[in-house]
Amino acid sequence: MKPSATARDVDAVLNVIEAIGLRAHAMPGATRTAIGITGNQGPIDGRRFESLAGVAEVIRVTKPYKLITLDLRPEKTVVRVNGATIGGGELAIIAGPCAIENREQAFAVAEAVQQSGARFFRGGVWKPRSSPYAFQGLGEDGWEIMCEIREAFGLNIVTEALEPPHVDLIEKYGDVIQIGARNMQNFSLLRRAGRSKLPVLLKRGMAATLEEWLLAAEYIMAEGNYNVILCERGVRTFAQHPRNTLDLAAVPAIRRISHLPVIVDPSHGTGSAYLVTPLARAGVAVGADGLMIEVHNKPELALSDGAQALRPSQYAQLIAEVRAIRDATALHASGRQVENGSEHIQVDALAHR
Amino acid sequence: MKPSATARDVDAVLNVIEAIGLRAHAMPGATRTAIGITGNQGPIDGRRFESLAGVAEVIRVTKPYKLITLDLRPEKTVVRVNGATIGGGELAIIAGPCAIENREQAFAVAEAVQQSGARFFRGGVWKPRSSPYAFQGLGEDGWEIMCEIREAFGLNIVTEALEPPHVDLIEKYGDVIQIGARNMQNFSLLRRAGRSKLPVLLKRGMAATLEEWLLAAEYIMAEGNYNVILCERGVRTFAQHPRNTLDLAAVPAIRRISHLPVIVDPSHGTGSAYLVTPLARAGVAVGADGLMIEVHNKPELALSDGAQALRPSQYAQLIAEVRAIRDATALHASGRQVENGSEHIQVDALAHR
Amino acid sequence: MKPSATARDVDAVLNVIEAIGLRAHAMPGATRTAIGITGNQGPIDGRRFESLAGVAEVIRVTKPYKLITLDLRPEKTVVRVNGATIGGGELAIIAGPCAIENREQAFAVAEAVQQSGARFFRGGVWKPRSSPYAFQGLGEDGWEIMCEIREAFGLNIVTEALEPPHVDLIEKYGDVIQIGARNMQNFSLLRRAGRSKLPVLLKRGMAATLEEWLLAAEYIMAEGNYNVILCERGVRTFAQHPRNTLDLAAVPAIRRISHLPVIVDPSHGTGSAYLVTPLARAGVAVGADGLMIEVHNKPELALSDGAQALRPSQYAQLIAEVRAIRDATALHASGRQVENGSEHIQVDALAHR
Amino acid sequence: MKPSATARDVDAVLNVIEAIGLRAHAMPGATRTAIGITGNQGPIDGRRFESLAGVAEVIRVTKPYKLITLDLRPEKTVVRVNGATIGGGELAIIAGPCAIENREQAFAVAEAVQQSGARFFRGGVWKPRSSPYAFQGLGEDGWEIMCEIREAFGLNIVTEALEPPHVDLIEKYGDVIQIGARNMQNFSLLRRAGRSKLPVLLKRGMAATLEEWLLAAEYIMAEGNYNVILCERGVRTFAQHPRNTLDLAAVPAIRRISHLPVIVDPSHGTGSAYLVTPLARAGVAVGADGLMIEVHNKPELALSDGAQALRPSQYAQLIAEVRAIRDATALHASGRQVENGSEHIQVDALAHR
Repeated sequence: MKPSATARDVDAVLNVIEAIGLRAHAMPGATRTAIGITGNQGPIDGRRFESLAGVAEVIRVTKPYKLITLDLRPEKTVVRVNGATIGGGELAIIAGPCAIENREQAFAVAEAVQQSGARFFRGGVWKPRSSPYAFQGLGEDGWEIMCEIREAFGLNIVTEALEPPHVDLIEKYGDVIQIGARNMQNFSLLRRAGRSKLPVLLKRGMAATLEEWLLAAEYIMAEGNYNVILCERGVRTFAQHPRNTLDLAAVPAIRRISHLPVIVDPSHGTGSAYLVTPLARAGVAVGADGLMIEVHNKPELALSDGAQALRPSQYAQLIAEVRAIRDATALHASGRQVENGSEHIQVDALAHR
Repeated sequence: MKPSATARDVDAVLNVIEAIGLRAHAMPGATRTAIGITGNQGPIDGRRFESLAGVAEVIRVTKPYKLITLDLRPEKTVVRVNGATIGGGELAIIAGPCAIENREQAFAVAEAVQQSGARFFRGGVWKPRSSPYAFQGLGEDGWEIMCEIREAFGLNIVTEALEPPHVDLIEKYGDVIQIGARNMQNFSLLRRAGRSKLPVLLKRGMAATLEEWLLAAEYIMAEGNYNVILCERGVRTFAQHPRNTLDLAAVPAIRRISHLPVIVDPSHGTGSAYLVTPLARAGVAVGADGLMIEVHNKPELALSDGAQALRPSQYAQLIAEVRAIRDATALHASGRQVENGSEHIQVDALAHR
Repeated sequence: MKPSATARDVDAVLNVIEAIGLRAHAMPGATRTAIGITGNQGPIDGRRFESLAGVAEVIRVTKPYKLITLDLRPEKTVVRVNGATIGGGELAIIAGPCAIENREQAFAVAEAVQQSGARFFRGGVWKPRSSPYAFQGLGEDGWEIMCEIREAFGLNIVTEALEPPHVDLIEKYGDVIQIGARNMQNFSLLRRAGRSKLPVLLKRGMAATLEEWLLAAEYIMAEGNYNVILCERGVRTFAQHPRNTLDLAAVPAIRRISHLPVIVDPSHGTGSAYLVTPLARAGVAVGADGLMIEVHNKPELALSDGAQALRPSQYAQLIAEVRAIRDATALHASGRQVENGSEHIQVDALAHR
Repeated sequence: MKPSATARDVDAVLNVIEAIGLRAHAMPGATRTAIGITGNQGPIDGRRFESLAGVAEVIRVTKPYKLITLDLRPEKTVVRVNGATIGGGELAIIAGPCAIENREQAFAVAEAVQQSGARFFRGGVWKPRSSPYAFQGLGEDGWEIMCEIREAFGLNIVTEALEPPHVDLIEKYGDVIQIGARNMQNFSLLRRAGRSKLPVLLKRGMAATLEEWLLAAEYIMAEGNYNVILCERGVRTFAQHPRNTLDLAAVPAIRRISHLPVIVDPSHGTGSAYLVTPLARAGVAVGADGLMIEVHNKPELALSDGAQALRPSQYAQLIAEVRAIRDATALHASGRQVENGSEHIQVDALAHR
């Protein structure tokens, strides 16, 4: 739509699309609204929309994905959660323990997270574990603790859903729905999350190509939820020194195709605490919109993933380092945009202060 | 349990295990019954079971998996489905189209499958597709066709479940529940299948280690369903000439650890029709208990995976070739068992005639 | 060239090619001679050759490789070594220890190799080892033992060259030059082997695509040596249960592109003795022209790669099994060629007797 | 040796080691000299050295590598080349074209390299190419241009050697010997470079584990050349959006094991110009000691690897960005060393100015 298009113009276009049996996806941006169309079998004649009031142009997207593309929406998506943002000038920090184990642990970690200036608290209530005999999370009991943390610390709650009914509970008590690497192609779960009003953090599958990952995001968006955050968390390769190989090139490669924000998880992406801080620095330097970090007050006693959790003091040092890199990067961003048109990074040097 | 143990002895042991709050898993074999115990937190003192009537020995399994191991059950599992077997002397053939598209297609393929002597018909009713805009299967409408095929051709029906409610319908109309590569770690689905009376065909995830795959089988068995068939279908590697890299060493490697039958899917394992027959031969030669093959009467018109589907005449040739290899292999099996103790292949040369 | 072309016709064409400053490569086949042209910068006008006596047709090969292609030479290459063949009806067996350690070891193994009917004896004189402190082979001292074996057992000697001067010694004492996985892109070594009169066995690099592997063969052929045997020996993937992942689909995939013979090395391809026999069976079943197998009289004492070496009795059992599979496969080959035009396997059922 | 040990003490220890038939490797550091011992078959009794004058302690290294380890030498190695350093406080920049094509191209690029403050000029004289028909470098003719650049711009010359004789020419005309990914296990070449007085830049093989890479460095050091620089340049994985997957976790993982400097090559590590700058930033942020960058004055006309070459203006922007990140990182390094003992980065914030 043109920048001058009114809400009425947008509605009129949406009505026409729905009237001919297709699905319309309105995505408002800073200056103009993009409207995606799905549900067509084969190509449709775009000329019928061109003469509607407020329409700027009609673009055919011939790629396997439609709604995630820069073709449809050249501006980056900024996901907003209770005043915090992911994908804008702010460096988004999501931190917390792998799993909520008990009130004392959760509160100790939440305090460190809040002090670092982070706006998001992560914590698993249901844990996907390779073995049926491993700790599977506190389940619904964990929510009581989560609710207290949300209230006490003012942090947004990010929790992984393993099956569609979990989304109901996150909608009730949480703020962001996480879909894990193992479920990146669990299409029932993607569709359920796509019908939610909460943002969805979609982790890359362990052997997923960029196209498969973006198509998983498309599943969510095709249901009407456009607040998707992509999270690179390492892929499986022959290299076994870290548990996974963090594929940082995915960040600029996604940015070249999609308007969705991308964050990096160096905790799962390496599996070893001593690698987390260096790879967090690298993730911010490569241009990620945020980080997801595992923190535990007593990593040696953690019920899951203790080997990769940082202590609060290590986490505080990490945050200081990545903020310095974000600032340093921001100072040169203007030069970069002139020289190297393929980077679409919007950085506001002081926004995260 | 000793070979001489009575059903009463077995029941008495099961009762003791349940009485102390653990879960008992009875797996009857040709000569003796193995009983697995799960649900313990930490080691338990096995001596309390040793003096019970009929108990031969108490073995502690220190591996991450318990029920799938040869430690627990040294004899191979033979899965029985309406008179057909998987894991015994018979070479199990599961064949059919990727997806049920319409009655004419399904019947044409089913006829070829029946003529080949195969006992299992595969066909997707719900299709997991990378893109939300691709053909997703006929859904429940497909079951009508499936029921007719089951009746008309006497074939056992193998269908993939994508979410727990699908298992209900397979239980009503089908014979074997398939869990696909993308869902290998969809733990809700594994648990639901574990509570079914139908056998479960569990495909290996695209980047799954053997341990992760066996632990996924353990999820099913921990719920009480011991009829699990493993299916190697290729893994994702740098090699891109076939769509996936079929890891045939997985077959003897699994056999060294587990009593579960293993079959090979050269159709998904290669993604190209011209590679299917050579890799099917290799799969039988390496010692697989069966094959899963995609057949289509008109591959060029298939709504999904047409590039890897064989025509009925190519499929018939494949079956002739793999049966000849199975026979040739069987003739030398006795020598092999003496020389090479690590192969646990039970082959009955003429059983599949 | 036409089947009726005379040697004089062939020579005349070769002279014309050389006269215009290009390089001619004559490859005689069973019924007709193919002539490859290299050395051109950009396309050349083929019409100038069409009218020469005996020329059947002029084909432009637009692929990155020229001489290895079926476009140039539709018949399979049969490599002949002192009466033995690789790539014809015979199943070629190359067996022996990883490294020549001493006379007693080498003779014990050579006896087993000869008894199996194999025609090729492998044994490393110079060993490429990851560590500078590991056993590096007997070096030139090993040749004395090799020469005795060649004479005493009538076996053709296959040895790996690590650097160009090694080729001189193999030319003096051996029969086939092996180029190992680590040296697949050691271009000086490839070029030196390309100037030899001995056949070259070229192993696939650990992370080589088919195209890179075929281009390495092209390096050898571009120097005038057309007797190249390709050897699949496993690639490096995330799967760590075997040391490497044997990519058996490479065999039919190469066959679709190239006339060169392909053999399989299940010893390096798996790294574990218990996997060698099953994967050898699979290699023959998939259509390989031969096998390379490590045998040691005392694997537990081997100075290198003992974990993957078979004992003589295990090796004899392997040979019996793979011959049975080769026979079984041959019986169905005629049907296959009708049905499945993409398989170019020439099998003579009784040739290896 | 103790910090107080004299040159005489060191010599005396070296003499004792050589006298008993072993090889001694003296590596002087800022405060003390480490002496490695190789050439032993099995363990040796270290007590015989303990009482020699100046000896601080005798450490047995039980890892497969000896000379590369922090066990032997806890201080980082700083490689010095005509006043420039790699591994110290300075961020080392090695930049230039993939291949020297002609004087005009080489001079245009060298000027940009000099202006950026870089101290090293890279340029291939012999090019390893997958195809025998691709541009293979100017060969010895290229040296004339290189010598002029070295003189005109005062840059150190880094060139890849493909075979031992190339090392002779680099010793005559160049400053640093590069060993490429394809030759990481070309042991003749490693040994020849190990006998050179010039530093060796050793690229990681495309499928090399960290252990294999470090053992390749050990081959060089075992010959007496301790000036080895490791270069991460991406590994081959299923991910195909960049040509290779840059494994940045290798940098801190190597640092935990070895005293050798590590640099990153984002040009080969990604294969696409638009990815080079983001990954260069990430490489510096993760803690690399330097970068190797391909620059071309006219990338669209480059005879090799044009897709990944930066224009001079893009390169200048890259340098400004990575220096800002290096500075930002340095400011927090002191805090890091206290909190996170596993990072051994020595950074001098202003040294590269």
